[in-house]
Amino acid sequence: MSLDARLLTALRGAGADAVSGVELSESLGVTRAAIWARIEELRRLGYEIEASPHRGYRLISAPDLLHADDLLARLGSTRVVGRDIRVFQETTSTNDVVEKFARDGVKEGVVVFAEAQTRGRGRLGRVWVSPARKGLWFSVLLRPPMRPQEATQITIAAGNALARAVKAQTRLPVEIKWPNDLLIRGRKAAGILTELHAELDQVKALILGIGVNVNQTARDFPAELRPLATSLRLEAGQLLDRAGLATAILRALDRDYRRVLDGEFDALVSEWEARCSTLGRRVAIQIGGRRVEGRAESLDSDGALLLRTQHGHLERIIGGDVTMAS
Amino acid sequence: MSLDARLLTALRGAGADAVSGVELSESLGVTRAAIWARIEELRRLGYEIEASPHRGYRLISAPDLLHADDLLARLGSTRVVGRDIRVFQETTSTNDVVEKFARDGVKEGVVVFAEAQTRGRGRLGRVWVSPARKGLWFSVLLRPPMRPQEATQITIAAGNALARAVKAQTRLPVEIKWPNDLLIRGRKAAGILTELHAELDQVKALILGIGVNVNQTARDFPAELRPLATSLRLEAGQLLDRAGLATAILRALDRDYRRVLDGEFDALVSEWEARCSTLGRRVAIQIGGRRVEGRAESLDSDGALLLRTQHGHLERIIGGDVTMAS
Repeated sequence: MSLDARLLTALRGAGADAVSGVELSESLGVTRAAIWARIEELRRLGYEIEASPHRGYRLISAPDLLHADDLLARLGSTRVVGRDIRVFQETTSTNDVVEKFARDGVKEGVVVFAEAQTRGRGRLGRVWVSPARKGLWFSVLLRPPMRPQEATQITIAAGNALARAVKAQTRLPVEIKWPNDLLIRGRKAAGILTELHAELDQVKALILGIGVNVNQTARDFPAELRPLATSLRLEAGQLLDRAGLATAILRALDRDYRRVLDGEFDALVSEWEARCSTLGRRVAIQIGGRRVEGRAESLDSDGALLLRTQHGHLERIIGGDVTMAS
Repeated sequence: MSLDARLLTALRGAGADAVSGVELSESLGVTRAAIWARIEELRRLGYEIEASPHRGYRLISAPDLLHADDLLARLGSTRVVGRDIRVFQETTSTNDVVEKFARDGVKEGVVVFAEAQTRGRGRLGRVWVSPARKGLWFSVLLRPPMRPQEATQITIAAGNALARAVKAQTRLPVEIKWPNDLLIRGRKAAGILTELHAELDQVKALILGIGVNVNQTARDFPAELRPLATSLRLEAGQLLDRAGLATAILRALDRDYRRVLDGEFDALVSEWEARCSTLGRRVAIQIGGRRVEGRAESLDSDGALLLRTQHGHLERIIGGDVTMAS
């Protein structure tokens, strides 16, 4: 961890208490002057840090921005997800950045956030509106040792983790719409775009692109999206701490990714099914030019949706657009 | 097509006859001086072109090199594969180049050849030895409108096309070893590496990397590969025309790709099965850490291998390493 990350970890660890410059200097192995310089820099970024000659430094508040060192400090220890965090002020799409990392052989677990995306992508080539500092727009690089056919498991795990973290942080009634949308009271608050680089029998890289609408007002959405989309702020009636939510999501992703690799996908599916509003309902699914209707019954062991059609067949659905009929 | 491509098309079209400078100038729409300059440039590359003041120009022979314009001229008209051809003298891997094209949004059908690859790749991260001017090392960008699960169909089609073209050009006893190796008398003469970029339910790019051992001598292979690998030259007992083989393969690929998209995969599978030495035999397949044994029975509609195990089950195999037991 960088000096800033360790400094913020120490300040956050002290909570409402102050930490003396001497203590910080000793525990971080740098001079008190160096500590002071970093404190000044953090203040410049908007961190409110009280400095008292007698008691030392105390973190009063953090600004509403994503700061890689602070995210690392708040994340704590994870096995894979978030071992490395990068924050861009603006990028085309965080998936583009992570794709490049993937090609360059970067290890799995790196997470790239952007405060704003100029070409945020949703599934099937759609646009994801990503206004500056209103949401969490980030991508995670994973390299699961599995075949491309099994990759749906990771999307299911990610959807489950995202729903759990958002619910824990906001206490809102969060539902999953298969395969990967997060709905609150019927409107979309978050989504996941999974991109895959693979040989025919081996995943080389799996990129989870995650978008969470956090602090948008209704006006921040284009008019045509307003009936369909929402933000956590609109639903909760208050602004949310984006960095706190981000680290909660990364911890949940790390846990559920590990569960898939440890062979616990079945248990994870039960959790996912409990959160899913698609199952048990009559749905229509548009797959390219084809439309299938039926009752969504369950997930199979690869994470595909099993649909009981009008004709009584069980059809296995990998992806598509779901409309709920009732 | 470029001027060189059109010029070579005209010279090749005349066969043993000469074409006058006036004729060329008129049909290509450039001055006779420009024609002369291009002829000089082609001669510099090694093309033997006779120039007679009375009769005109006649192509006597082409050098053993891959020249994009000449490949385009010899290829003639195709629907997708080879609409654009690039030749590099050396690259890390032609798949790397085409991956970049894929990300940059280049249309499907582009083919990239390299005279030598410094980091040629085989399946599952293996090295593909690609010495300069001894073989055909190339990659094709396709964007089939299908789901990743169906992409095996394209590999099957490519294997079929490759086998058909090599057989037609060499009259050697070519066999396909599932999923994608070309064997001659039990040794590997060519292989296909399929790489996929996809969302969960939609292929964005499929890259066929094809390596054909054409004119290597035994010495061109590392000692440990000599019992396993061969070249067309070693088997046929003579040097082969690489450019002629290359264009024959591209034409065959174009045809079989079109057949898959036109819904003719079943007919194509019958052809493929007739060429395949794996089917009907007892095989052992290594899939990551797992080993499955049984009798290879047939392909299913997605191109997966159906294996009848010792226990009588029919197992569906997507990829892996096949050893033939008998």
